[in-house]
Amino acid sequence: MSYRAPVKDMLFDIRHLAGIDQIAQLPGFEEAGFETAQAVLEECAKFNEGVVAPLNVAGDLQPSSWKDGVVTTTPGFKDAYKQYAEGGWQGLQHPTDFGGQGLPKTIGAACGEMLNSANLSFALCPLLTDGAIEALLTAGSDELKATYLEKLVSGEWTGTMNLTEPQAGSDLSMVRSRAEPQPDGTYKVFGTKIFITYGEHDYGGNIVHLVLARIPGAPEGVKGISLFVVPKFLVNKDGSLGARNDVHCVSIEHKLGIKASPTAVLQYGDKGGAIGYLVGQENRGLEYMFIMMNAARYAVGVQGIAVAERAYQKAAAFAKERVQSRPVDGSVNASATIIHHPDVRRMLMTMRALTEGCRAMATVAASAYDAAHHHPDAEVRKQNQAFYEFLVPLVKGYSTEMSLEVTSLGVQVHGGMGFIEETGAAQYYRDSRILTIYEGTTAIQANDLVGRKTARDGGQTAQAIAAQVEKTEGELARRSSADAKAVAKRLGAARKAFLDVVAFIAQQGKASPNAAFAGSVPYLLLTGNLVAGWQLARSLMAAEDLAAKGEDVDFMKAKVATARFYADHILTRVPAARDAIVDGADSVMALPQEAF
Amino acid sequence: MSYRAPVKDMLFDIRHLAGIDQIAQLPGFEEAGFETAQAVLEECAKFNEGVVAPLNVAGDLQPSSWKDGVVTTTPGFKDAYKQYAEGGWQGLQHPTDFGGQGLPKTIGAACGEMLNSANLSFALCPLLTDGAIEALLTAGSDELKATYLEKLVSGEWTGTMNLTEPQAGSDLSMVRSRAEPQPDGTYKVFGTKIFITYGEHDYGGNIVHLVLARIPGAPEGVKGISLFVVPKFLVNKDGSLGARNDVHCVSIEHKLGIKASPTAVLQYGDKGGAIGYLVGQENRGLEYMFIMMNAARYAVGVQGIAVAERAYQKAAAFAKERVQSRPVDGSVNASATIIHHPDVRRMLMTMRALTEGCRAMATVAASAYDAAHHHPDAEVRKQNQAFYEFLVPLVKGYSTEMSLEVTSLGVQVHGGMGFIEETGAAQYYRDSRILTIYEGTTAIQANDLVGRKTARDGGQTAQAIAAQVEKTEGELARRSSADAKAVAKRLGAARKAFLDVVAFIAQQGKASPNAAFAGSVPYLLLTGNLVAGWQLARSLMAAEDLAAKGEDVDFMKAKVATARFYADHILTRVPAARDAIVDGADSVMALPQEAF
Repeated sequence: MSYRAPVKDMLFDIRHLAGIDQIAQLPGFEEAGFETAQAVLEECAKFNEGVVAPLNVAGDLQPSSWKDGVVTTTPGFKDAYKQYAEGGWQGLQHPTDFGGQGLPKTIGAACGEMLNSANLSFALCPLLTDGAIEALLTAGSDELKATYLEKLVSGEWTGTMNLTEPQAGSDLSMVRSRAEPQPDGTYKVFGTKIFITYGEHDYGGNIVHLVLARIPGAPEGVKGISLFVVPKFLVNKDGSLGARNDVHCVSIEHKLGIKASPTAVLQYGDKGGAIGYLVGQENRGLEYMFIMMNAARYAVGVQGIAVAERAYQKAAAFAKERVQSRPVDGSVNASATIIHHPDVRRMLMTMRALTEGCRAMATVAASAYDAAHHHPDAEVRKQNQAFYEFLVPLVKGYSTEMSLEVTSLGVQVHGGMGFIEETGAAQYYRDSRILTIYEGTTAIQANDLVGRKTARDGGQTAQAIAAQVEKTEGELARRSSADAKAVAKRLGAARKAFLDVVAFIAQQGKASPNAAFAGSVPYLLLTGNLVAGWQLARSLMAAEDLAAKGEDVDFMKAKVATARFYADHILTRVPAARDAIVDGADSVMALPQEAF
Repeated sequence: MSYRAPVKDMLFDIRHLAGIDQIAQLPGFEEAGFETAQAVLEECAKFNEGVVAPLNVAGDLQPSSWKDGVVTTTPGFKDAYKQYAEGGWQGLQHPTDFGGQGLPKTIGAACGEMLNSANLSFALCPLLTDGAIEALLTAGSDELKATYLEKLVSGEWTGTMNLTEPQAGSDLSMVRSRAEPQPDGTYKVFGTKIFITYGEHDYGGNIVHLVLARIPGAPEGVKGISLFVVPKFLVNKDGSLGARNDVHCVSIEHKLGIKASPTAVLQYGDKGGAIGYLVGQENRGLEYMFIMMNAARYAVGVQGIAVAERAYQKAAAFAKERVQSRPVDGSVNASATIIHHPDVRRMLMTMRALTEGCRAMATVAASAYDAAHHHPDAEVRKQNQAFYEFLVPLVKGYSTEMSLEVTSLGVQVHGGMGFIEETGAAQYYRDSRILTIYEGTTAIQANDLVGRKTARDGGQTAQAIAAQVEKTEGELARRSSADAKAVAKRLGAARKAFLDVVAFIAQQGKASPNAAFAGSVPYLLLTGNLVAGWQLARSLMAAEDLAAKGEDVDFMKAKVATARFYADHILTRVPAARDAIVDGADSVMALPQEAF
């Protein structure tokens, strides 16, 4: 089997870090306790291991192709997607009102990880559909909801996000696509959109494009952008598909990775204008888009965890099989499997600890999201919302940057074989390379963390997190185990460095924006590192307690060892980043532009 | 122009860090002063910029191909190789006795960097020929030398290194190819060799394979391996090409990168035995192979610097051209080129500082090599040899690991465009990924650094280097500039951390090999980081002095700014690595194998 879903690890996090039993006490989640989580995850594992994962290599070897405006996906993908939709997987987290299952994000995120581990390229279509659903739920009129939501939630139709234009990437103020109002209340949309994931495909149904465009006379910049639904096929009153709309795929990109996922250039309005429907109010498009982007950013963070998990599994399997050289400790008097070698072990532990750390962070973020949306107490909702929003750039930024490190180590563990495409380790290395770029580069996430999430409240949310970390340190220090004490020490050093940086960012944010933003990405990575390490420290305590009760002792010991490794080898990076951010801001901008 | 050779930077290092004027005082290098260096580098730049660099993309799009045992290289490569040979570039560093130019490695290494920046795939053929020349010079009989050396040095024939077999990668003790002695003193060679770079091609001439194989009855393990010359065509007495030998290319690999470079599977002896000639003495093959590998390891380190330089140039050019978003400091009241943004600047500075740091280290290592081979005083030769040998695993390991970081940042600077293959940034990311693997993985380099270079002499060479670093710190601290003082501080912290680690490695090497080797790669990276940072600190002082004299002030200021950035942002990683190595050794091996 090429992928085995880490159901046990996921359930451990869901139960002991995210507190699924508390989530099940929230209104609307009464059915969503541990047993539901277990049942859903096991079913999801079966589907992804059996149906989706086996298509991953084929998607790389035989990518989506374009001919005369028609995109043909990799053989097998269409059928797998049909099974995905029929299995009800698209609706997992979506409201029961529109045919969804209304499960917590805490459970949905784990399912999302499995789908992405199985096949990043395949998973992108559902990921974008989720975004479209989110946008329509938030800002769509009742009519738009009635027309589109049920079919999107069932997976019969798919969704896309159309932001980027050749001159407008990270900078959406430069969007030029235009939408001209028509007497019947619709709009005619004109323009070119690029990098549109699953902008065209052959899965059937309709493609519901959510498109940013300007209405003539709208203000300049981001405050003059509106959001439109532009379906590939117009929808008849009875819900059936009508005429082809004037949006056409003029090419797809030749990419480094995720090759099975068609990345379309879409041309709107070349034959008179594509009919579009305004979502919400005029000129508030970016605001709505951010809602769907926040969901998508979290989901891309999960993609990072997912590809890291799969790269780890492949590397670990290889290391247990490949025989090469004698162990340095003399434990075997002949060439042995390479997992005996300390550096191979270091690489595997690094891969494992980073993956588990980011999963723990993402799972806890998901539970905050669930509480922020379902808790009866407004104050608790607010706190959870602030915590979740602080974590989104970390989940997106840190987990995806981490996936570059993990997939690179995955190649390295394979030695020369890793560089040969047939081995498969290189695909993860290539696929993951988009994750730190799309849905906002790591720098865009870091800007969000610095500006909206740290400087705006003067560092309050950040300090509240540090206080919680400190509480965990105290709990660790009171334990008798050497592991807990060692982790407490590293966590404390990291927290103090974090607080220094938060103070620096909060202070410099306005006084010297270049200095604050020069350290933005290191600040994001440092903070993600701390939060992931903190969650692994919590998992260490839970695991020690369960092991003491005799529950699944080997598994619990592995949890402890992984948390300890993380603290020793990864949390130790934090103080170095503090020095670079706080003392090194000036040297980032010291060289004049002409000197580059 | 897709690549502009950094001749000025190279000459700065050659003059002010490597001391070319001192090298020109060594016997045999009388002609090799600064002016020669300048003339050679300028000519070399012209050739590589004009002829070799433009073929780099073609090599990726239209890789070498195999059909019926024949390998066809990318169109244009054969002609460019002809020009390379005719230009006398293959013989640059080789003895004049065999038609070479006998120039110092200090100059040759810079030329090697240019060739590799221009085209890693193309450069591999000369790189392997260099290795074959080295092996024959060291251990070949007069007859072998007479038959092969002149044609290899002129580039008319090419060379290969045949070590790897399917079961024998890093572990050469498992080599199974065999060589049966014949009554005429030759051998018949049988076996399968894999991953043979330029093992077959269409450049013409002969291919001189240097092959590791066992003679029947030889001892088990690495002490029973001999080295053979097995030419593709037997050579007639008059030096002309004779019969085809029984070595055949049965396939080439489909790789992640360096696609134009054919990676051959070679089958020896399927038609009765390939005729081979013993190099040196029986069973000493590994020893000879190490000589050629040490040259090749240094050269692969230079490949890392080369691809980093090219990735940097591409990213810097893009950042000065691409317009996106307003600067955070309000310096431009509209969307501006992305080089205005602090995080883009941080990425470019990181790429630049790492590249310059590794180049400085490699250039100084080359000058030590030159002194080790040409200095009249045996004691000076010995010291330089020890220093050079300590640096080889750093040049190889650190520069190549650094190239992974730099080429990844290169993709990131390009945003979404970086993921599109047409942009070209992705090629560097893919090409560089082999560099930490071939000619000994980073772990193999680290084993060499830990075992032969550190533990064996109880850390003496390492401590001698630390003492030199400390001397540089003193020189920096006595300067008036804030930059020099800041660099002194970071260098001091890094040196102290280095000494802690050296003591740990020297002490644990025998007592607890797992603990010592668990930190081997972090130790290598930390040490490479320190040595590169130290050389940039020296370059800062030279640049300050020259700027004070009014010499090329902008260039010198950029040198100072880059050294300062390195100290603030990269040297700061060293203490973190110390903590992980010294305190974290146990957690590397804590998880039992079954738990992976």
